[in-house]
Order: sequence, then C-alpha cells, then structure tokens
Amino acid sequence: MTTVPGAFAPPARVLLGPGPSDVHPRVLAALAAPLVGHLDPVFVAMMEEVKSLLRFVFATENALTIPISGTGSAGMEACVVNLVEPGDEVVVGVNGVFGTRLAEVATRAGATVTRVEAPWGRVVRAEQVEAALRNCRQPKLVALIHAETSTGAWQPLEDAARLAHDHGALFLADCVTSLAGAPVEIDRWGIDAAYSGTQKCLSCPPGLSPITFGPRAVEALRRRKTPVQSWYLDLTLLERYWGEERVYHHTAPISMNYALREALRLVAEEGLAARFARHRANHEALAAGLASLGLAFASEEGHRLPMLNAVTVPDGMDEARVRRRLLDAHGIEIGGGLGPMKGRVWRIGLMGESSRRAHVLLLLSALEDALRAEGHRVAAGAALAAAQAAYAA
Amino acid sequence: MTTVPGAFAPPARVLLGPGPSDVHPRVLAALAAPLVGHLDPVFVAMMEEVKSLLRFVFATENALTIPISGTGSAGMEACVVNLVEPGDEVVVGVNGVFGTRLAEVATRAGATVTRVEAPWGRVVRAEQVEAALRNCRQPKLVALIHAETSTGAWQPLEDAARLAHDHGALFLADCVTSLAGAPVEIDRWGIDAAYSGTQKCLSCPPGLSPITFGPRAVEALRRRKTPVQSWYLDLTLLERYWGEERVYHHTAPISMNYALREALRLVAEEGLAARFARHRANHEALAAGLASLGLAFASEEGHRLPMLNAVTVPDGMDEARVRRRLLDAHGIEIGGGLGPMKGRVWRIGLMGESSRRAHVLLLLSALEDALRAEGHRVAAGAALAAAQAAYAA
Repeated sequence: MTTVPGAFAPPARVLLGPGPSDVHPRVLAALAAPLVGHLDPVFVAMMEEVKSLLRFVFATENALTIPISGTGSAGMEACVVNLVEPGDEVVVGVNGVFGTRLAEVATRAGATVTRVEAPWGRVVRAEQVEAALRNCRQPKLVALIHAETSTGAWQPLEDAARLAHDHGALFLADCVTSLAGAPVEIDRWGIDAAYSGTQKCLSCPPGLSPITFGPRAVEALRRRKTPVQSWYLDLTLLERYWGEERVYHHTAPISMNYALREALRLVAEEGLAARFARHRANHEALAAGLASLGLAFASEEGHRLPMLNAVTVPDGMDEARVRRRLLDAHGIEIGGGLGPMKGRVWRIGLMGESSRRAHVLLLLSALEDALRAEGHRVAAGAALAAAQAAYAA
Repeated sequence: MTTVPGAFAPPARVLLGPGPSDVHPRVLAALAAPLVGHLDPVFVAMMEEVKSLLRFVFATENALTIPISGTGSAGMEACVVNLVEPGDEVVVGVNGVFGTRLAEVATRAGATVTRVEAPWGRVVRAEQVEAALRNCRQPKLVALIHAETSTGAWQPLEDAARLAHDHGALFLADCVTSLAGAPVEIDRWGIDAAYSGTQKCLSCPPGLSPITFGPRAVEALRRRKTPVQSWYLDLTLLERYWGEERVYHHTAPISMNYALREALRLVAEEGLAARFARHRANHEALAAGLASLGLAFASEEGHRLPMLNAVTVPDGMDEARVRRRLLDAHGIEIGGGLGPMKGRVWRIGLMGESSRRAHVLLLLSALEDALRAEGHRVAAGAALAAAQAAYAA
C-alpha cells in the first residue's frame, strides 16, 4: 500500500531560463499521440523524416544524423566516447560549465586532455587552440562549446575547425543551445561531429539529443582499436538501428521522437533565416531594456548569444529573491548562475518558442517590479520603452 | 530549404509485442501538460512523488530510487558502471539477449566477467551461480535477468541473491520486463540494485529507466577508487540532483517524468496484488488458447513469464508473414525472435495496459486467421473457447 498523490496539474509558466523553453501546443499534441512499436514500419518511416529534418537544421548532408535517446549531456558523452580512445590527445576549450564538463567526460574516456582556458563570459581565441595543438604529439580531437549556456558566450568555430584539421585532428562542437536559434553550419564550417539538445531553440521537451557525425568522424569510428566504452551510446550499434538494417538496439523513446518531429516541422515551416532573425531581434530588444534598467551583460561584447543572456546581478542584491518573485508573482522562470557565477548572474533564455516580443516585454516589466522591490532605482516604463524602440529600429 | 513532411498521424495499434505496451489515455494526457523548469519548486515536489511511487512498485525503502534519463538499457549500464570498477569480478547469468548484453556492458566497464550459461528459454540454476562464485577470487557482483524478454524465461532471484551475499558480492537484477507485472521484492529478496524500463508493465512510453540502489550498493559507490566511467550515468552526481541538494546535473526529461508519475499512479490505484493477478489470468487464458491452436511455448515450463509469452513458430512457417498480417489486417503488433531465436519464435507481450481480456481474445482470433492463411489447420473458434474456459475457471 502507498499513498496515491492526486493528479498533477503544473502551473502555467513562461520559460525564460536556460531551458527547457516553451513548447508549442502542436508539439505537446504530438507527444500525446498513441504509441506504435519501435520497429513498426510507420515508426521506421518517421525516423527517416526525423533524420532528414535534423540534417536540415544542422545544415549538413551527414548520413549519421540521429537523435540520441538521452538529454544533451548524453549527446556530449556519445560524441566523446565514440571519437576518443584511451590515450588519445584531446584539446577542449574551457570557459564555462559545459567546456569543463566536456573535459571531464573526455578524461573519463581515457583521453589526455589539454584545457584551453578563457575567463567565464569570454570566448576562446583561435591562437590559443593553435598553441595547444602545437604542444600535442598527435592530437585526435578539438572540442569547443558553440553556445556556452552558463555564460552566454558565443564561440566562433570556423578558425578552430580549420586549425584542428591542419593538425590532423577532428573538430567537435557543442551546439546544445545554439541549434535552431543561430547559424550552425556543420558542413560549411568543417565540423566533424556535433550534438545538441531538444529543449533549447528546438522548443521540444528535454529527453533527446540530436547528433551528427561527418565522414571523418565516421572514419575514426570505423578505425577504432577498442570498443566504445558505453554500450548504450555506441554509434556502431546505433547506426544499425537508425540505418537500413533496423537492428534492434534499445527501445527508441517513441513519444519523444513524435515530439521532435513536430518541433522540427515548426522550425522548417518558419525557415532558419527567419528564425535566426527573430532570435536576434528579441535579444536586441531585451538588451536595450536591460541597459535602461542599469543591468550589464556578463558576456563579452561582440560574442553575446541571442538566445541566452547572462546578466550581471547588481552588487549586494539577493538574486534568488528576484528570481523567486518573478516565478511567484509573474509566473516567469529565469535561471541563476552556475559554478563561479552562482549568485552573480541571471540567465535569461529567449529560445525557440520562448523568443517572442510579448515575452521580452513581459519580462522587462516583471523585472522592473522585482528590482524595485529590492530597492533598485528604476524609471517606470523606461525598459519597455527602450525595448519598443529597439523593435521599431 | 527542406521539404516539410505533413503532420504525423500514427495508426491505432494494439501493442502486444515485447514493448512498448499500450499507454493509458491519462498517461498520454500527462505527457501533453505544459512544461515547468527542471529546478522549479513544483517539479522538485513532483520528483519526490515519483521517487516515493517507485519505492512502492520496487517494494523497497531504498532512498536512492530514481528514474534514469534513458531507456532500460541505460538503466542497465547505469547499474553496472556505478557498481563495477576495472578488474572487478562479475558473474552474469546468460540465457538470452539481455544477459548477453549485461555481460558485454560489464566487460566494457573493465570487469572480469564469468558467464553462467543456460539454454535460451531456460533459467539459470542457483548451483551454477554458486559454482561460478567459488571460482572467483573476490567476486564483486552477481547479475541475473529476472524476466528475459528475449525468451520469456522467469528467473528466480532469491537463492542467487543469498549466494552472492554469502560470497561477499552484491546482487543486481534486471527487472525491465517484470516490474509492476509480477512480484519484484527488492528488500525482501535482498536485491542490492535493480533497474527497469517504463514501456513494459508500467505502460508508460519508453524513455526512462527506474533504478534502485540499496545500502550495500550505495556503500560500494562511496568506496569507489575510480570515477564512474560515464558522467551522464554517474549516480554520485545524479543523487545530488534527485536528493536534497538539487544540484544541476542534466536537464531532466520533464514530460516523461510527468508521464511516469501518472503511470505509477495508475499502478498504485490498481494495487500490486490485483495487477499481478490480472497479468497471471490473462497469461493463463492466452496459454490455453495457444495450446488449442497447437502452438507450444519456447520457455521452460514452470518458469514462464506472465507478461512475455515466447511461442515456438511451427516448422516451415514464415513467421514474419504472420506478424505482418497481424499488423496490417488486425492492427496488432507482436514481436519476432532475437539472436538465435530469430525466425523461430513469436513474442507476445501482455504488459500493463496491454494485459486485457479483450486483447487476449482479439489476438487469438487474429492469430487463428493468420495461421489459417499460412495453411496451418486450426479448428474455428477453438482458441477463443479455450481462453474463455480458462477465464471462467
């Protein structure tokens, strides 16, 4: 016997944190569709559509472009453990939580890791990557975080990818937060492998991690001398289920794949260019409003992500109380800082469905209220006016 | 630009394969509820309810009882990589696909694996486990598959768990297919760690893997000398998110946790004893009907799972054509064989919501039609009559 709790009725939230983002009603409806089996011909046909739509958002022709059955961190681990063998030299850009995590995952996979560090909020310079590569004997992999969700830094990738290839290494990009919110050009930029998450700019619930492996990455997979340490994430097995053979590996998360397909359809209907422009416009309006509230970005100028805005908390302010007021009084979730940025930044996500003019204005209005409640002097309505002006510009 | 496929409208299926099973409309509705954040106080409170309901179905007091953010195979890997360190001696019962998989996962985790083999369809004997333990220097772990989904064999666990402890080893049980369909008594049977999947007798979509770690398993985790090789599945990190600290690890699959909570509520409302009795009654009626169709079980008498019925394909019959007819003409999915049983068995799942009298009768009627189409002589209506008689008994 146990006490049976009542039905769960989640409150209405406006999700403006670092993910999950708001989910379109069409995606929620797709989640609720009746299930078919994971080897049903209807599901198999749907898998092909998901792969094709993922190739579209990744801007790639890579055949091995599939959703991993786990969240973005599972995608990170999948990329690393499939590309890296014990003893391999790996260069990782570390300027926030996710670079730190990637370095840790590579270490656990037996790699010899060189951390290329930049202060949190700043990006890693190509010269640093080059210097690290020069110090390697035979580098296997360079990995950078395209969109550092912990700091809002927008990392350029092209030069680093070229340098990696010049030194005979593969290039891996973390596109968890950038995919479908800012350009991710896998083929044009020469990215050999990348992973993302569903709950950011794809605006699908969390639970899957789209990944893509290009020809060089697939070749490295074929040439492995040791088995992939994770059976669950072993792409040599997964590609047989997602490929033509349809060999059973694990039971694919049926409903989440329905949802991903619908979320990708929404992206394709909007078009990537329009979607990126929308993310940029809402970011700029938010930035104008924040400036008028006297709030500064924690990330480097010129390298600020449009979908993840890290904002410095004013000195002496209890940032958690502000977030709590936004949540309790306004139904708005924003994120706090992680690691060394805990207590020092807010992270405002404008991702996918959450990137909307109405949300920007709502947030600025609520933030004005919450800051005033903390004794911060703000001119009434100034933030909204600044944002409106940015939209009009 | 890409071609945008139309909206996805899955056909109605009766899911009588090895999983996924039918999902209750209340669970589908829970999936479609609006999202909250993974650190939202409302979500955190819901996590506690999920943990409590999981303890109920696992019949355990174990604090570390949580859903892993992946399918059952991720749960298997989570248990193995957290309990095993390189060089550890592990004894694995191998009598089907999932024992074989567990042995492989343990090998990839660096274990020295002793396979205790039994023919597919039969169970592993406690004496075999004891002999294997005697041959170990210092065994760390014994693992058995409670419900071998590939063969329908129902493995007793209690004696093996006791033997493991007698030899100073931990005992791990794969309860993917058994949980919530047959008794799983974690505490009473002395099981130190176990994992399951959501898409079998819990009748929730695939995507999460409930696991439970008891005191001895947690102690082994604390005493590790090496980091867990998987960062994503590292319970020393996961328990800080699912525990009181709520330290961010990865973004929990929000919607899937909603669904799991609702599926567990349905289990609790029915009650475990009633649920097990229902699975048994439908299995017995199916067995009576199958016998009257001249079909034999592939699994050992006295050790047949109620929720997974492996049936021997009559000599010379094209089993795939039968399955295709069931699917196309009747909308019923059943499973084929795996590995050495490919082409030789059908796997009929009566799991969770799929374990219903109406489904048993529907399947027998459809099977009669499909077998007749293959030239198999069957007496019209005999299978239904046999099943009805079994229900009446």
